[in-house]
This record gives sequence, C-alpha cells and structure tokens, in this order.
Amino acid sequence: MTTKNSTHPVTVLGLGLMGRALAGAFLRGGHPTTVWNRTAAKADDLVAEGVTLAGSLQDALTANPLIVVCVSDYEAFHGLLDPHGALLEGRALVNLTSGTSEQARETAAWAAGLGATYLDGVILAVPQAIATPDAILLHSGPAEAFEQYEPVLRSLGPTTYLGTDHGLSALHDIAVLGLMWSVLNGFLQGAALLGSAGVPASAFADLTTRMAATVADWTPGYAKQIDEGAYPAYDSTIDTHLAAMDHLVHESEAAGINTELPKSVKAFADRAIAAGRGGDGYAAMIEVFRTPSEVGA
Amino acid sequence: MTTKNSTHPVTVLGLGLMGRALAGAFLRGGHPTTVWNRTAAKADDLVAEGVTLAGSLQDALTANPLIVVCVSDYEAFHGLLDPHGALLEGRALVNLTSGTSEQARETAAWAAGLGATYLDGVILAVPQAIATPDAILLHSGPAEAFEQYEPVLRSLGPTTYLGTDHGLSALHDIAVLGLMWSVLNGFLQGAALLGSAGVPASAFADLTTRMAATVADWTPGYAKQIDEGAYPAYDSTIDTHLAAMDHLVHESEAAGINTELPKSVKAFADRAIAAGRGGDGYAAMIEVFRTPSEVGA
Ligand SMILES: NC(=O)c1ccc[n+]([C@@H]2O[C@H](COP(=O)([O-])OP(=O)(O)OC[C@H]3O[C@@H](n4cnc5c(N)ncnc54)[C@H](OP(=O)(O)O)[C@@H]3O)[C@@H](O)[C@H]2O)c1
Ligand SMILES: NC(=O)c1ccc[n+]([C@@H]2O[C@H](COP(=O)([O-])OP(=O)(O)OC[C@H]3O[C@@H](n4cnc5c(N)ncnc54)[C@H](OP(=O)(O)O)[C@@H]3O)[C@@H](O)[C@H]2O)c1
Repeated sequence: MTTKNSTHPVTVLGLGLMGRALAGAFLRGGHPTTVWNRTAAKADDLVAEGVTLAGSLQDALTANPLIVVCVSDYEAFHGLLDPHGALLEGRALVNLTSGTSEQARETAAWAAGLGATYLDGVILAVPQAIATPDAILLHSGPAEAFEQYEPVLRSLGPTTYLGTDHGLSALHDIAVLGLMWSVLNGFLQGAALLGSAGVPASAFADLTTRMAATVADWTPGYAKQIDEGAYPAYDSTIDTHLAAMDHLVHESEAAGINTELPKSVKAFADRAIAAGRGGDGYAAMIEVFRTPSEVGA
Repeated sequence: MTTKNSTHPVTVLGLGLMGRALAGAFLRGGHPTTVWNRTAAKADDLVAEGVTLAGSLQDALTANPLIVVCVSDYEAFHGLLDPHGALLEGRALVNLTSGTSEQARETAAWAAGLGATYLDGVILAVPQAIATPDAILLHSGPAEAFEQYEPVLRSLGPTTYLGTDHGLSALHDIAVLGLMWSVLNGFLQGAALLGSAGVPASAFADLTTRMAATVADWTPGYAKQIDEGAYPAYDSTIDTHLAAMDHLVHESEAAGINTELPKSVKAFADRAIAAGRGGDGYAAMIEVFRTPSEVGA
C-alpha cells in the first residue's frame, strides 16, 4: 500500500456531477485513474481524456489501493460496497458522499471490521470549483491515512485534516450548510421586506454582498470571546440589539410579510437577556444556542 | 439656502459616539461646523479641532441652513425639536437617528408642516468607519434636497439616494440588520454544533468568513430570479436542500444543542415544497417569506 512517489493510482466510484469532476481532477493531477459508475455511459468523456473504465465493480475495487467514493448518499454507498466487503481488506476508502456524522462513524466501524482504512470527507464546493483554490475539502479519520493520501487528495483542491473522529467532516459540512441557509434566509427576509415598498431584490443583493462580508469578518472576534467564555460588549450590547429587533418585527408586520424569522431572532435575544446577558456583546448568545430547546419548541 | 461653492456650513445636534464622528468628518471635509449636545462637555475635543459649540439649542438651530441630527431615538429627536419648530422654517433637516419607516414618514409630515425640508438617512457603519469608503449612508426624501446637500453629506462616506419615500432608509436599515442577525445566528448555531464535538469556535469562524462571502455572492443571481419571478434550479433544488436540512436538525438534536433555528430553516423549505416549489431553486423561497405568518406563529 505504500507509494514510492507522488503518483497514486486511484479508483473513483460514482460519476455523478461531482464524481466526474473528481475523476477528471485526479487524472489531471497526474494520478492514473480507474472509474466505475452504475450508468457506465457517464464515463465516456473521462475515458476520452485517459481515464480507465473498469469492466465491473469488482475490477474497480481491486484495481487500486485507494478508492474514492462519491455517490448520492450512504444508502447508495452501502448498497454498492456491502456485497463486496471482502475485496476491501488492506485498501483505503475515502468517502466523499454527504451524510451525517453518525453515518460516517458507523461506516468507519464497518470498514474497520473489514480490515480497510477509512477516511471520511466532505466537499464544500460545486463541481466546477474542484481543483481550484475555491474548493474546500475537509477530511477526518486516521491521521496516518490522511498523510499518506494527501498528495493525491490535494488534486481536488485545498484539503484540511480535522481530526481522528470520523464524524468531524460531516459535522463541519452541516454547520456550514446551516450558515448558508441563515445567510440566504436573511437575504430573503430583507428582500421580502424591501419588496413590499417596491424595492427590487437586486438592489438589496448589492447591500447583502457588502454587509454579509463585513459581518462575517466580525466572527473571528466573537469566536475568540466564545472560546474564552467572556463576552464584553465592544460595540453594541444585546439590550441595544433587542430594541432594533423589535423594529424588524414591527416593520415586517406593517409590510404584511412573514414575521417568523424576525420573531425568532428576537426570541433568542429575549432569552439571553432573561439569563442576565443583556449588557454583554452578541457572542454571549452562544449560550442560548447551546441550550436544548424546550419540549414542544 | 443656496450655496455658491462646495463649502456648506452645517449644524450637528447630538454628540454621542456617532454624532462626534459626524461632526469631526464635516469639519475635516471643509465645512464650517456648529454643534450642540445636551451634555456640552462632549464637544470639548471637537472644539479644540475647530468646531463651534453653540451657546444654546436655539443658537445651534439658527446658525446654519443645514441641520444634521443624530440622537438616540425619535423620542429624543422630537423632545429636542418640537419646542423649537418655528425656528426650522426654511431650513433643511437631515435626520440620521435610527428608527422605523413609520417614524421617518411621520417626522417628514411634521417637518413639512413647519415649512422645513426633511431628509431621512441611516448609517450602516460604526463611528470609526465614518469618512472612510467602508461607511454606507443611505438617504430618502426629496431628490432636490439630496442633490443640494450631497456634497456635504458625502464627507461622511459613500452616500446613496434611495427615493422620495422617507421610509426607505429605515426600511433598508432594518433589512440589513436582519441580514446581520441571520449571519450571526447561523454562525452561533454552527459554533454550538461543532463545539459539542470539541471544535473551537475560532476554527468555525475561519470557515464562516470564507463561506458567508461565497454565499452572499450568489444573492445577485437569486435576486434576478426574484425580480423576474422565475426560479429555475441551476444548482440544488429545494427538495435537495430539504434532505440536508433534516441532517442539520438531527445533528443538532444528537449534539444536545438548541434545534429551533434548524427546525425553522426546515419549516420554510417544507412550506415551499407544499406550495409546489420543491423542484425550483432556493430563490423560490421568497414566496414563503412574503406570506404573512399564520395566526399564533
Ligand atoms: N453537486 C454538488 O454541487 C455537490 C457539492 C458538494 C457535495 N456533493 C455530494 O456529492 C455526492 C454526489 O453528488 P452529485 O452531485 O455527483 O450527485 P448526482 O449527480 O446525482 O450523482 C449521483 C451519483 O450516485 C450514483 N448513485 C445513486 N444511487 C445509486 C445506487 N443506488 N447505486 C449505485 N450508484 C448510485 C449515481 O449513479 P448513476 O449515474 O448510475 O445514477 C451517480 O454516480 C452527494 O453526496 C452530494 O451531496 C455534491
Ligand atoms: N454607534 C453606532 O455604531 C451607530 C451605528 C449606526 C447608527 N447609529 C445610530 O446613531 C444614533 C446615535 O447613536 P450613538 O452611538 O451616537 O448613541 P450614544 O452614544 O448613546 O449617544 C446618544 C446621543 O443622543 C443624545 N440624547 C439621548 N437622549 C436625549 C434626550 N432625551 N435629549 C437630548 N439628547 C438626547 C445624547 O446626549 P447626551 O450626550 O447628553 O447623553 C447623545 O448625544 C442612534 O440612533 C443609533 O442607532 C449608531
């Protein structure tokens, strides 16, 4: 399983939008690449580029010591691999299929039982960004395996190793997706509010791109407070935020649009204030987000 | 009231953190500046720089044709100015005090009744950013008044004129604040989730700054769809988002942290799907945000 130079032959299972981008990037990164897909025709363009299409799933699994999997979900992953577990002994699996941290940890235990090395990974990028500096790839699992395969994984874009807990990649993935939905919903709420006064969404998008970057730039400072457990208010206190949150609720009501997001924003601040955090900075709200929801909430 | 060159004498009422930044910026912009504040001592540093401290509020109001007000709220604004309405005839008021669109429109009517010109404005910036390219100032009210005073208002930073409806600045202000809280809450939810696995918030802040900018860059594309009323899914459909939202809910439950934000993210998508939008792109969610909340929500 050890490789003597930086060329690692690799097998890619799954040639959806993402799998095709991965296989092409490995090949262009100088790594002999074998592929297999349920629908074989999706390999045509890759084969023209120099990728090898395996004649069967068994051939694909035994072709190389490193197997990268990118299919729709963990059901598809196990549907493919469970019947061929015996072939995985002594090989390394890098699973770039999206799922939960629990699925990643369960699959790591399953792989260990088969004598296979297992790395879980997530891709925070669209297929078009693969092999560019904009792709973010995160991996978790045994450190030695990551070190061994980093030279080939790096062909996909900047890769980060998160730690030995196999669940960490999925957890980062979902945390980033949560941030994504929050940004998008904040944009949509504002677009709906301004739309009620005839302002086009495009005008607000322009403000959104400027302000989201500004606000995101504050998060390292807030993170430092969270990691230190002290939340001095350098700018606004939560009390001050609350007054403006009230405006957001009332403006949304007056505009006749949905008020749930504004009310939930305010409810979080209300709870932080009830817990004695009104004079602290916004980062103190982490305590509310850490507290399990009340029954029925 | 007409000025023959680009120097406009200006009066600033209110010397809190923001008012002091404004007065200093006007002076350094080359405009003779007169100030008044309930607590006169806050003018000391400005006076040393060359600002004139009016002996009384009446003196401040009659010193110049242009009066910029920046006090805590509209109550403070009216508490100061209502007793001196007669002095405002023929003058221009630019109100940079934060409030609601309704307060802005009411105050415009009040000013009209006194024969005063009224511009409402908001500052999307901290005092330290005033007079830098990072300050965003938005104004609404009569276009001629904005054109006349833009040369002096520009001393505070890049200014944008939004339209004649006096409520537009406050509406933009609150829409941007709503976006801000959404970004911050998305960050806090993710930090709480990753924190449950021992990941420091600082590590997530790093991902947040990169991803928030990426996501915000998508909003002009979504805005175009919203303005055109058609939401083709170029990347993910709402159906695909929903599956991952389910992961966010379950990961948050498993981590023992708050699940309200994840559940509300999912509830919005559920509603869009129930309305037949599952095959559309995320921008189609605007229809949910435009729909008034059900009673009790
Ligand atoms: N696309 C993105 O922007 C993106 C970004 C980050 C992460 N991801 C993740 O990457 C993974 C793949 O996404 P994708 O965009 O490539 O999806 P896709 O275009 O829908 O491709 C799905 C792949 O899974 C295979 N597959 C599905 N069910 C199967 C089964 N039961 N048995 C065998 N193969 C099966 C498909 O084979 P057939 O070709 O035969 O149908 C295809 O190769 C997902 O977990 C996704 O969340 C995607
Ligand atoms: N600071 C920011 O980052 C920021 C950013 C954007 C917008 N703004 C907005 O700018 C406005 C001023 O904010 P700030 O930061 O300057 O607040 P601040 O530091 O608390 O100052 C408040 C100002 O209002 C005056 N004031 C309050 N109540 C009064 C009353 N009843 N009668 C007379 N004067 C009264 C205060 O006078 P005394 O000095 O005598 O108390 C002081 O000049 C607010 O509407 C705020 O929302 C602030």
